[in-house]
Amino acid sequence: MRHWLFHYRREHLAGDLIAGAVVAMMMIPQGMAYALLVGLPPATGLYASLVPCAVYALIGTSSTQSVGPMAVISLMTGAALAPLAAPGSGLYLVLSAQLALLVGVCLLVCGLLRLGFLSQFFSRPVMSGFTNGAVLLIIWGQLQVACGGAVFAPHLPSLLLAACAVALLLAARRWGAAGLRALGLGAKAADIGARLAPMLVLLLSIAADLAGVFAGRGVALAGEVPRGLPALNLATSPAHWHALLQPAALIAFIVFVVSMSSAQALAIRRRETLLPDRELLGLGAANIGSALAGGFPVTGGLSRSAVNAAAGAHSQLASLVAVLLLGLALYAPTGWLALMPLPVLAATILVAVANMLEWGTLAAAWRYDRADALALLATFGGVLLLGVQSGVLIGVALSMATLIWRESRPHIAVLGRVAGTEHFRNVQRFAVETQPGVLLLRVDADLFFANTGAVTNRIEQELERHPATRHLVLVLSAVNGIDTSALFALEELNAALKARGIGLHFAEVKGPVMDRLRGSRLLAQLHGRIFLSTAMASTELGALANAH
Amino acid sequence: MRHWLFHYRREHLAGDLIAGAVVAMMMIPQGMAYALLVGLPPATGLYASLVPCAVYALIGTSSTQSVGPMAVISLMTGAALAPLAAPGSGLYLVLSAQLALLVGVCLLVCGLLRLGFLSQFFSRPVMSGFTNGAVLLIIWGQLQVACGGAVFAPHLPSLLLAACAVALLLAARRWGAAGLRALGLGAKAADIGARLAPMLVLLLSIAADLAGVFAGRGVALAGEVPRGLPALNLATSPAHWHALLQPAALIAFIVFVVSMSSAQALAIRRRETLLPDRELLGLGAANIGSALAGGFPVTGGLSRSAVNAAAGAHSQLASLVAVLLLGLALYAPTGWLALMPLPVLAATILVAVANMLEWGTLAAAWRYDRADALALLATFGGVLLLGVQSGVLIGVALSMATLIWRESRPHIAVLGRVAGTEHFRNVQRFAVETQPGVLLLRVDADLFFANTGAVTNRIEQELERHPATRHLVLVLSAVNGIDTSALFALEELNAALKARGIGLHFAEVKGPVMDRLRGSRLLAQLHGRIFLSTAMASTELGALANAH
Repeated sequence: MRHWLFHYRREHLAGDLIAGAVVAMMMIPQGMAYALLVGLPPATGLYASLVPCAVYALIGTSSTQSVGPMAVISLMTGAALAPLAAPGSGLYLVLSAQLALLVGVCLLVCGLLRLGFLSQFFSRPVMSGFTNGAVLLIIWGQLQVACGGAVFAPHLPSLLLAACAVALLLAARRWGAAGLRALGLGAKAADIGARLAPMLVLLLSIAADLAGVFAGRGVALAGEVPRGLPALNLATSPAHWHALLQPAALIAFIVFVVSMSSAQALAIRRRETLLPDRELLGLGAANIGSALAGGFPVTGGLSRSAVNAAAGAHSQLASLVAVLLLGLALYAPTGWLALMPLPVLAATILVAVANMLEWGTLAAAWRYDRADALALLATFGGVLLLGVQSGVLIGVALSMATLIWRESRPHIAVLGRVAGTEHFRNVQRFAVETQPGVLLLRVDADLFFANTGAVTNRIEQELERHPATRHLVLVLSAVNGIDTSALFALEELNAALKARGIGLHFAEVKGPVMDRLRGSRLLAQLHGRIFLSTAMASTELGALANAH
Repeated sequence: MRHWLFHYRREHLAGDLIAGAVVAMMMIPQGMAYALLVGLPPATGLYASLVPCAVYALIGTSSTQSVGPMAVISLMTGAALAPLAAPGSGLYLVLSAQLALLVGVCLLVCGLLRLGFLSQFFSRPVMSGFTNGAVLLIIWGQLQVACGGAVFAPHLPSLLLAACAVALLLAARRWGAAGLRALGLGAKAADIGARLAPMLVLLLSIAADLAGVFAGRGVALAGEVPRGLPALNLATSPAHWHALLQPAALIAFIVFVVSMSSAQALAIRRRETLLPDRELLGLGAANIGSALAGGFPVTGGLSRSAVNAAAGAHSQLASLVAVLLLGLALYAPTGWLALMPLPVLAATILVAVANMLEWGTLAAAWRYDRADALALLATFGGVLLLGVQSGVLIGVALSMATLIWRESRPHIAVLGRVAGTEHFRNVQRFAVETQPGVLLLRVDADLFFANTGAVTNRIEQELERHPATRHLVLVLSAVNGIDTSALFALEELNAALKARGIGLHFAEVKGPVMDRLRGSRLLAQLHGRIFLSTAMASTELGALANAH
């Protein structure tokens, strides 16, 4: 695949420029708000938006994915750092960057090992349960900030301010686009304009602050945004690094899952193919970039990426434009950003994440597949009761359990001959002819560790049902692979059947499967033969069995 | 399934009686030795042999499985208890029984929830790596006991005693059977007689003790065996119970995996079908029985069960006979067991577990499937470097990773018509006819969360390769299930293709799959049709595409 930079098409430039500007204006309130969610000075969120976004644009495979701070990842980061340092302290800042470094290294190593398939460890219902649980935790936390400290004893000016901001943001979401259309904007421009409401609210609140509205009322402010990039500090105790390892692995996993699901949703609409291993490298480098900028773990989020695509982004240039604009904003005097009131940032988060809550997956899964719905609910409950990290593990365990359960019940059919033909079909569904001494079994799944027990058990059951069997033929027409566990199980089956005077035969073994079996002990010891077709096996073995 | 007790066949009695006596004589040294391995007074091993064996015989489904202490489980138990109490202390005894209780409850709950498929979470290579790692840890620990404390500063009388015992046991293994045959025993009786060498060594060493050979030499002895069953003590702090939970879950998992692999090996030889869910109940009850008898976690071990079967056991009565004999031995004066020297018990363990080391799986996997061999080595290294509990988790993770990796690469074929027929085959392997506007794709795997990404990506690739496509037909003849994740992915695919003016059609949907799809949003919104056969889809859509 050629790099997008070297075959950039000029007609994409306008779209990319506009999308870049729009995303930059989204990034400022979002970055500051998600830094607050981590428990960091809002400024760090801007650096975590800047560097990773540029790094991903140069490496990642999705043309419209925008990488930066994201609500769920910020929640997980805060949960990982909370036991180690006080939020906002110097150590907390250092550890957040170190965590981003570890997350990046995890992703990079997985990418180099080509472990892109790992994003498949989460099923969608489990992801939905996980996200909903995390969002409720975020809402609970941000309600405290919106109330100026405690939900049940609110600081009234803070609460009032947050409530105004929430009302404004909700109003913008509901009527913003219609209002802008009424002002003469096109439908698409109006939609995008409405998305910039958080930036507007931010500017309004800063203006109010400058006008002295909050003076002496005790409303917490964002505080100084330092100019230029801070540096990564690697000097902490080994105990700290060790404590960050497991959270880093879990965060890296969720970073990848979240980013892939966002990128996948965009890719299918944009006729793109994603390369999961390259995505791992891109996200890994982005997180290392965030660490070097003194930021925190980041990922590709659907909300920002979707706006990027909707605003006309055709290529990764849009992200570079956004970074350039944000960088200019940070290089210019940034004192005004310090005036941003925290309750307004909390309101931004509340409105953004409330939008992420969705119960449609639960409803659909409940109707379609009750087991999936229960996995969703268990993950949701796990996140709420045991926290976001245990929630990831519960989700993976449940996804795997569904998978193993499915795989441990392979479809196996007893075959018979369609009279007068060379076709063989399931005896339970077709009127077919069978022979007393020959048992034909077709296994409709690859043979591997998760189903060897079930296959062995089923063979035993069928032998009990067909006590006259002298020849067992496994028809492997649907088997694309046999792993080491299944190979051993077949060796044991062969030995056991041999002791019982029953031949074990194979039919319709596929080429690649046969190639691997050729050097194995199984073929050397096989108490039976290998037939090209089921018909040949049936005819020859039937004659043998009758001769007895 | 009728219970074996109610259809006992009289001709089995002689074999069951002999096997019971043989197993009872194996149980005494084994029980004492594995209790020592846990870090408990050797007597507790006898109670852990007694009760669980009887309980399993009444509930389990394997007729020759013998449940009791087992080396790897004892190692895991010791590793779980070590951080909580001093080995041999009163608290240690109480906690070991509580751990057995928790393990039993875990297994019982899994049995009631019908989670018998959970034993499939470990592939054989991973199990082999895990066992070899655990055995090396056991050997290292028992070398210390054999040396009377420290390997590098051995207590010479202890070391000498252990060396003699090891030499005797190895000699018995190599030449015992031949010697007994030379004395006139039949081949089978001689083989079984040689298996009783540990009991002989135990009796010899006690005789030597009584003769005053060890007097004043500082050799550690087993100590008093109390008469009658001790009682389970549930009164410890909640912190202790909490700390035991995770180890209990891991031990329960390994108890189940070990017991199932042993039972499966015996079942196929004995023409039995195992019921995994019933096995969970049997093992759960056995562990609760062990807890009530003041014992520790137990499982069905292959070495003891194989001897049981080889000695002529036909039914679970053999286990009941063994328990009866062992119970009589414990009810008689047991003072003589206290004289057993610990280095001799360590020698028994060393010889027994050295036999469990096997590198054949590694060799076979290395030749047959390199990925399986690497998973084995990683689990092996994980056990040695990070301990036996982390080893379980690493093993499960690697088994799952192999599984997801396999599942994430489903076989997908582009189909074409075999000229003049209604048959459709893979275009890469057959000379078939295709139509420019119609793309036929057959997915040879169930559609579910682990492969939705790969399927979507592949569809996109094929659409790029066939830019004239106006109709995409997914041939679902090999699809036995579509989970919620895949359902959503198909809905998104449908929406995306609709936007691109491409119809999404299905052909050869199986009955059960169609039944579940019927109420779904996918069918309601489908931008295409459902065809009974690929031929019908090809003909009708081909005509449509040409009409354009």
